[in-house]
Amino acid sequence: MHEKVIEGILNGDRRMVARAISLIENQDPNKNKILSEIYPHTGKAYVVGITGAPGAGKSSLVDRYLETLRKQGLTVGVIAVDPTSPFTGGAILGDRIRMQEHALDKDIFIRSMGTRGSLGGLSRATKEAVQVLDAAGKDVIVIETVGVGQSEVDIIKYADSTLVVMTPAGGDSVQTIKAGIMEIADIFIVNKSDLAGADRTVSEIGMMLDLSENNKQWRPPVVRTVTLDSSGIDDMYEAIEKHRTFLMESGNIEKVRKERIRRDVLDLIEYQIKNTVWDQVSGSDEFEELVNQIMSRENDPYSAAAQVLQGVNLDQCKVF
Amino acid sequence: MHEKVIEGILNGDRRMVARAISLIENQDPNKNKILSEIYPHTGKAYVVGITGAPGAGKSSLVDRYLETLRKQGLTVGVIAVDPTSPFTGGAILGDRIRMQEHALDKDIFIRSMGTRGSLGGLSRATKEAVQVLDAAGKDVIVIETVGVGQSEVDIIKYADSTLVVMTPAGGDSVQTIKAGIMEIADIFIVNKSDLAGADRTVSEIGMMLDLSENNKQWRPPVVRTVTLDSSGIDDMYEAIEKHRTFLMESGNIEKVRKERIRRDVLDLIEYQIKNTVWDQVSGSDEFEELVNQIMSRENDPYSAAAQVLQGVNLDQCKVF
Repeated sequence: MHEKVIEGILNGDRRMVARAISLIENQDPNKNKILSEIYPHTGKAYVVGITGAPGAGKSSLVDRYLETLRKQGLTVGVIAVDPTSPFTGGAILGDRIRMQEHALDKDIFIRSMGTRGSLGGLSRATKEAVQVLDAAGKDVIVIETVGVGQSEVDIIKYADSTLVVMTPAGGDSVQTIKAGIMEIADIFIVNKSDLAGADRTVSEIGMMLDLSENNKQWRPPVVRTVTLDSSGIDDMYEAIEKHRTFLMESGNIEKVRKERIRRDVLDLIEYQIKNTVWDQVSGSDEFEELVNQIMSRENDPYSAAAQVLQGVNLDQCKVF
Repeated sequence: MHEKVIEGILNGDRRMVARAISLIENQDPNKNKILSEIYPHTGKAYVVGITGAPGAGKSSLVDRYLETLRKQGLTVGVIAVDPTSPFTGGAILGDRIRMQEHALDKDIFIRSMGTRGSLGGLSRATKEAVQVLDAAGKDVIVIETVGVGQSEVDIIKYADSTLVVMTPAGGDSVQTIKAGIMEIADIFIVNKSDLAGADRTVSEIGMMLDLSENNKQWRPPVVRTVTLDSSGIDDMYEAIEKHRTFLMESGNIEKVRKERIRRDVLDLIEYQIKNTVWDQVSGSDEFEELVNQIMSRENDPYSAAAQVLQGVNLDQCKVF
């Protein structure tokens, strides 16, 4: 079965691309085999990450950006990641439906991914979906995600260029976007920049960049956009191209991608070991007995962990 | 050396408590030994978590709550967790200094903890600091943290009662607090409830709770507070007491704490294995060779991980 999926991906068959992403989401046992086989065909796409607070207008920006890319004749994949609770499903669904106007365009592939289980799992699934779209020949892959915390940063870290979207609305938006989000921005977008306070937001970002200690070779530009009339979208496109050129010419893209590979392999190993340990330990009578002992303070988590570790067997720990 | 620290903790010696928390933060090799030995003396404290967006007034609330607890003659430990970038250090430092008024009270122990390395590490360190304060005989331990994403949820999940603090300012505050934050609230606080829009915020929270699918036995109450004149602080105290009584009488506290122990032991095991693998693999010539092969697409991360896994040796993997 997985040969058909692999062939389909490499031919850019959207049904097979969709199926592969579903297999990834469902943690199908064939998933790693497929990803392993398509890997030689990856590494060609440019990956753009777009993150920002809820309501910042990320989906509309992606929408406009897609139009610009399509005018250049480029093929695009979009992965819209929703690491959200059921509470906000509605609004995001609305955005998605709007974006589906592009869905009729066969050179655009759009997919939403949500949390099934842990956010760590979502980050891994996003990365793997990017690989599928890359192998399927998409020129540009956009990852769109709500950016409010460290886990969301993990989702976006597979992007070559990361755009952080802010708005003038809510004077404290600059303060709210924090905890590592500022540091990952290659480009700042001040969206809804026709609203009052846009100048202030732009200058606040500038001040934060001035305060930033790291003497980077690249200072993130601040681009103003208004999605309603598409103003600033060309500037946004240019800023991404400029950053891409910078990454290529400085050789930084090699460094970044190499480091990403290191982390990928280690993450994979850790994940497999974690699952093996979980399977062997969790739910077993011995483990429950230890938990009861700890509960009654006859034992402690550290001594128990040491005890469990002695019995861990990695023979069953397999990637494929 | 660690015997002195253990004895000091158990005697409630604040210098030794402070030293133990520093050892935890610095990942000192003696740390697990200390935590293992004090473990039999833990499990008595009640742990209250307070989370919410930046600027919601969490520190002031903690301040007022401390006053109420001290009037009851209870001893208190506070762990204020700042998982923030350097950009926001200033404001939080200001809050901390204000809270130091209590620092002269010998029955209150206040400690700030920040990110050193990963947020995962911060979550573990917070949990371990709670154990130290618990063993030191504090009746109530407050964990205060900025709540904006999943990782911050991980920090607060060691609390028995979790308070999520909202404000009427910024009509979209209810929308912003998301991604698992709503679900962890045992009590909602609408702080600054003298501001316009407080009624709307209270009713929005109510609507979200109505929409929430899970038929919980406990419906989180919504408490209005104003820290300037301490109004509502008694209600907040009562709500926490009520939730504590609910947890005790329903037997849920046993279930929750048992599940926490399970996760603790598994987390510890995973963490030790991860470090062992990292030490053995990362930086080795063999690993760098694999990375280069993947970079040039002669190999792929999945096959490489499978290859590395065969050589992993857990003999060196020790908790103590």
